[in-house]
Amino acid sequence: MADEAPFQFLHSEVIEYIYKSADSGEAENGRNITKLENMGLRVGQGLIERLTKDTARFKDELDIMKFICKDFWTCVFKKQIDNLRTNHQGIYVLQDNKFRLLSHLSAGKQYLEHAPKYLAFTCGLVRGALSNLGVKSIVTAEVSIMPACKFQVMIQKS
Amino acid sequence: MADEAPFQFLHSEVIEYIYKSADSGEAENGRNITKLENMGLRVGQGLIERLTKDTARFKDELDIMKFICKDFWTCVFKKQIDNLRTNHQGIYVLQDNKFRLLSHLSAGKQYLEHAPKYLAFTCGLVRGALSNLGVKSIVTAEVSIMPACKFQVMIQKS
Repeated sequence: MADEAPFQFLHSEVIEYIYKSADSGEAENGRNITKLENMGLRVGQGLIERLTKDTARFKDELDIMKFICKDFWTCVFKKQIDNLRTNHQGIYVLQDNKFRLLSHLSAGKQYLEHAPKYLAFTCGLVRGALSNLGVKSIVTAEVSIMPACKFQVMIQKS
Repeated sequence: MADEAPFQFLHSEVIEYIYKSADSGEAENGRNITKLENMGLRVGQGLIERLTKDTARFKDELDIMKFICKDFWTCVFKKQIDNLRTNHQGIYVLQDNKFRLLSHLSAGKQYLEHAPKYLAFTCGLVRGALSNLGVKSIVTAEVSIMPACKFQVMIQKS
């Protein structure tokens, strides 16, 4: 039994609930994505606070990103990010080859259009975690072949 | 780092979201409790299906209840139920001396009134799990001293 199952099932129910209680249509879909993203944001803030309680200070931005890819990802998804790339100018790409919140969807192309609603929460999760570590960012996600997916983090210099 | 933290934080956000998007008032509070209970119901159904995939058939109702108290509870809350009692006539009382979804609330009496919204999801969770095992039930919860709480399961004979 996978340890993260209660979290996965609850995550699916939240999406279901938000979409069910809203009208359909493009504008509404955007609002639902925002709701999920905001929920993720707050969960990310809470989690990172608890996770870093006894951690030494991070030495730089890359150090923070590595923590997100390893400790933070493992806490939520029971696996690490498979690949982290950066252009060393504030853009990071986190690739998860088997993203848990997509793995229950079939791999067929017809499901690709549903992917955004399964990624919004996690985009917020990463943004929330980073923000609590003092790093302002924009996080987006893309799927090419399910259940692999990439999260792009653009650091916002203030 | 407690393993169940992502689930806990998400659970809190769901409560927050449902209460925030609704009007206040007694009737509305009742509807929110129902929403949380229904969400728990579906999560419970999904979880128990996965958990019992490779399990031998249960020999009776008590056997099922023991599974809920041990395997099911451990999967969701990373601990077992501390005490299971029954009157052998279809009523079971499951006591958790340190219920995880209450443990972030302070133990003061002034928080007791908030307890129901933190218990509704789990009542549904138990009812959903049981219903998928063919046992129809009514599940209620009560808190006397936080974070201890009791779930009462009344089996509905059909």
